[in-house]
Amino acid sequence: CLTLAAGTTCAQSNVTLYGVMDAGLYQKQLAGGSRDRQVESNLMETSQLGFRGTEDLGGGWRGLFDLSTFFRPDLGAATRGIPGETFWSKSALVGVAGDWGTLRLGRMSTPGFLNMIRFNPFGASSSLSPTFLQTYVGSPTQPMTTGSGATDSGWNGSVAYTSPRLAGLVAALQVTDNKSNGGRRIGGSLSYSAGDLAATLSVEHVQDAALTFPLWDTALAGAVPPYTAHDLKTWNLGASYDFGVVKLFGQAIDTRMAGLRAGRSQDIELKTYQLGLSAPMGSGRWLLSSARTGMQRAGAQDLHRTTTSLGYGHDLSKRTDLYAVVMDDRMTELSSGTGFALGIRHRF
Amino acid sequence: CLTLAAGTTCAQSNVTLYGVMDAGLYQKQLAGGSRDRQVESNLMETSQLGFRGTEDLGGGWRGLFDLSTFFRPDLGAATRGIPGETFWSKSALVGVAGDWGTLRLGRMSTPGFLNMIRFNPFGASSSLSPTFLQTYVGSPTQPMTTGSGATDSGWNGSVAYTSPRLAGLVAALQVTDNKSNGGRRIGGSLSYSAGDLAATLSVEHVQDAALTFPLWDTALAGAVPPYTAHDLKTWNLGASYDFGVVKLFGQAIDTRMAGLRAGRSQDIELKTYQLGLSAPMGSGRWLLSSARTGMQRAGAQDLHRTTTSLGYGHDLSKRTDLYAVVMDDRMTELSSGTGFALGIRHRF
Amino acid sequence: CLTLAAGTTCAQSNVTLYGVMDAGLYQKQLAGGSRDRQVESNLMETSQLGFRGTEDLGGGWRGLFDLSTFFRPDLGAATRGIPGETFWSKSALVGVAGDWGTLRLGRMSTPGFLNMIRFNPFGASSSLSPTFLQTYVGSPTQPMTTGSGATDSGWNGSVAYTSPRLAGLVAALQVTDNKSNGGRRIGGSLSYSAGDLAATLSVEHVQDAALTFPLWDTALAGAVPPYTAHDLKTWNLGASYDFGVVKLFGQAIDTRMAGLRAGRSQDIELKTYQLGLSAPMGSGRWLLSSARTGMQRAGAQDLHRTTTSLGYGHDLSKRTDLYAVVMDDRMTELSSGTGFALGIRHRF
Repeated sequence: CLTLAAGTTCAQSNVTLYGVMDAGLYQKQLAGGSRDRQVESNLMETSQLGFRGTEDLGGGWRGLFDLSTFFRPDLGAATRGIPGETFWSKSALVGVAGDWGTLRLGRMSTPGFLNMIRFNPFGASSSLSPTFLQTYVGSPTQPMTTGSGATDSGWNGSVAYTSPRLAGLVAALQVTDNKSNGGRRIGGSLSYSAGDLAATLSVEHVQDAALTFPLWDTALAGAVPPYTAHDLKTWNLGASYDFGVVKLFGQAIDTRMAGLRAGRSQDIELKTYQLGLSAPMGSGRWLLSSARTGMQRAGAQDLHRTTTSLGYGHDLSKRTDLYAVVMDDRMTELSSGTGFALGIRHRF
Repeated sequence: CLTLAAGTTCAQSNVTLYGVMDAGLYQKQLAGGSRDRQVESNLMETSQLGFRGTEDLGGGWRGLFDLSTFFRPDLGAATRGIPGETFWSKSALVGVAGDWGTLRLGRMSTPGFLNMIRFNPFGASSSLSPTFLQTYVGSPTQPMTTGSGATDSGWNGSVAYTSPRLAGLVAALQVTDNKSNGGRRIGGSLSYSAGDLAATLSVEHVQDAALTFPLWDTALAGAVPPYTAHDLKTWNLGASYDFGVVKLFGQAIDTRMAGLRAGRSQDIELKTYQLGLSAPMGSGRWLLSSARTGMQRAGAQDLHRTTTSLGYGHDLSKRTDLYAVVMDDRMTELSSGTGFALGIRHRF
Repeated sequence: CLTLAAGTTCAQSNVTLYGVMDAGLYQKQLAGGSRDRQVESNLMETSQLGFRGTEDLGGGWRGLFDLSTFFRPDLGAATRGIPGETFWSKSALVGVAGDWGTLRLGRMSTPGFLNMIRFNPFGASSSLSPTFLQTYVGSPTQPMTTGSGATDSGWNGSVAYTSPRLAGLVAALQVTDNKSNGGRRIGGSLSYSAGDLAATLSVEHVQDAALTFPLWDTALAGAVPPYTAHDLKTWNLGASYDFGVVKLFGQAIDTRMAGLRAGRSQDIELKTYQLGLSAPMGSGRWLLSSARTGMQRAGAQDLHRTTTSLGYGHDLSKRTDLYAVVMDDRMTELSSGTGFALGIRHRF
């Protein structure tokens, strides 16, 4: 076997094996849904295993790669559960970096996804983050067309450039070919940070696609037949300010889609707003986040969803924490749902 | 690349990469079956690759995880060959441990399976251990309803507790939700060890399931249609005593099933007994094990299977051994089979 | 996480994590094909991740294993894209070695494949090596029956022996059972090297198979219906001589197949010749290779394909290089194609 002490670092470090294991107990109930109790994976963060490395190329240049897979511990399954998901769906990239920035090729998370998880206190929790649920997760009780979700958190066939930090600003640009994903895609972000303030503006545009979004709850007006989007554009402005006793988060996300339903063209607009905070207490922190999405469509009723999560994360160490979260989920015309999660996350 | 010397250990050890590679030549012939000669995987132990780690949390507490996959070297395949098997089917668990015991969540081997492999000299050999063949392996020539096999060696969606050792006793309990496997499951074991004696009593109960067991050999009475079990309970008592020149093993396993065949309810009872020994000789050991299973069913003939394996394992090192095994397999109304295996196992 | 410095070596080295990441931009156009522009994986070498190790068994003996997977970074996919490909398709082997040679069991690259990649300057590039394209890659614009390709670069269920080096000679032999692949297979090679000269003669024979080769371009004479080969034999003689300022490569490959088309038996013979060179320049090297395959069939027109690649590889370090390649591809009765590739390869 191959065993190494934690925290070993070397000047010429080469390959790092890293990962996250997250599992817990979940009483799941989304708006309009039944109440299920189960052992569940990935409540606070999606479990992952990765291999990454850097190489000093001299002259300030570095080579780099990252290859990583998602999995679900409760099932021993090698995916997040998305149909057609590939094994190395978290990242599979190679690149070079220097004073001039970083250039990467392959599959990787998008600027818009990274912005979404950065400015909500529940981060990349696909089960408990109100923003994540309302923008990236399709569900049986989700009356919204999930604007960003069908485009996935990562894009295949990408070329991405990230600038160095200049006057507190970092710019990122990611483009894809038009064969590796649905449609041709471009995304970018501009991030600013100074002291306790951080903010990112991102935009993503998917063209020439045919992404079909079922409205799962067929009792809702305009739910049938499914909608097929050809053009999607998402703007996302997120910001945080750390006052020390509390860190505040805010997000405003706008997605516009042009597409077809039943052979007739229909435009859809989704607006999501999120406010949240995290507050250190003891050897842990309180987390609170509330997000609201409104969907406007020609020829159908407007729909609204409001999701609020309150939780506490207790650090057993820098790498291991326990968490307990309650979530309230409400949508137009549906019964409200109350969820409860209790879990453990271990980073390695 | 990332290379490390064997046997490196550290106080704060973190991640360990480990595994087993097992391949050999196999002349396979089970009772009632044809004789096949082939390069085969996993004759003495199922090949596996895993990543596990522990973290010192202070105060005697530890965090831990284990993520591991089975594979077949002869085909380069990432599974044992069980339909629907997930990639991380050996284990995918995270937990904490302390003076009070160990608590784990995820997918993991069951108390009954661990008991089965512990008290037969061929251990976890799914091809050559008489007990393993008779309780966990379905086969074209297996006339038995494989009582434990359809429930797999590991259970999804598990919460498991293992006690510390008190007065030679260790207790283990594992429960699952009723969504992650077929049925709701609970298993437990009580183990005792003192000096050269070791013994474990385990029980597993699967409720509200619908597990279908074909009786592969359709020439046998009551083989058609397949049987669907709704409730399974397995008791297993195993023990070993090490006399030095020889170590003796014994197992008594009782499985009772309630289910349906052709729309009519039928109860099935399986009793398995095993006796075995291992005897050190030279730089290796002799292995001998014989198991007999009897199946009783209402309205059909009783069936019996007797399997005996004799082998020698030669250690090339502490981590690598060669093995040669002959196996005799007999069942009611079927022609007897004689198998021969020659292989190599390397642990890393 | 588990991190280690590059180049760490130990006397008793145990497990090595290794791999290749290769991605780039590809304007693909084979003979008769359309022109596509895309982000592409594995242009110069197939990306791979592996775990291998050796163990000192004393007395000059070593235990060894290798477990490795191919992947495509552009899609995050865990295969090369071959239908039915297993996860550990690069290698899954265990063995022992000593003064007497090396004996391995499992899945591994064949003597003929290793010969093919050794004596062409583009090596194991499945996209840009003329020899590789003409002997192992089926494609929509490939009018040839791909003689070696359908038999894959690696064989399942193999037992392989490689001799020690005696008087500059190394012999290798690989046999399979007749269950793990299509047909029963045997392959062997004899390699000679002395100073700047190297040469290998290999032969592979597949018997009792049923390997179906579509001729993708149905406009060609004799393209329909597909051909099913029952017996394939491939001889390959390759050589190289390193003059220092330039290294010359040559290959002569002959494949004979007996099989059926439309229920009638048909024999096919393919002859491939390749000439190539690599010439060091600056911190890199020029690569040039041209291969020509002729196919003779009873009752149908002879077909010819000529492929020429010219490229430059620039080393950013010993482990990372950038490459740019132009390729010209011509076939009987098809429009010619011109491809262009620009990529990065990182080894770890």
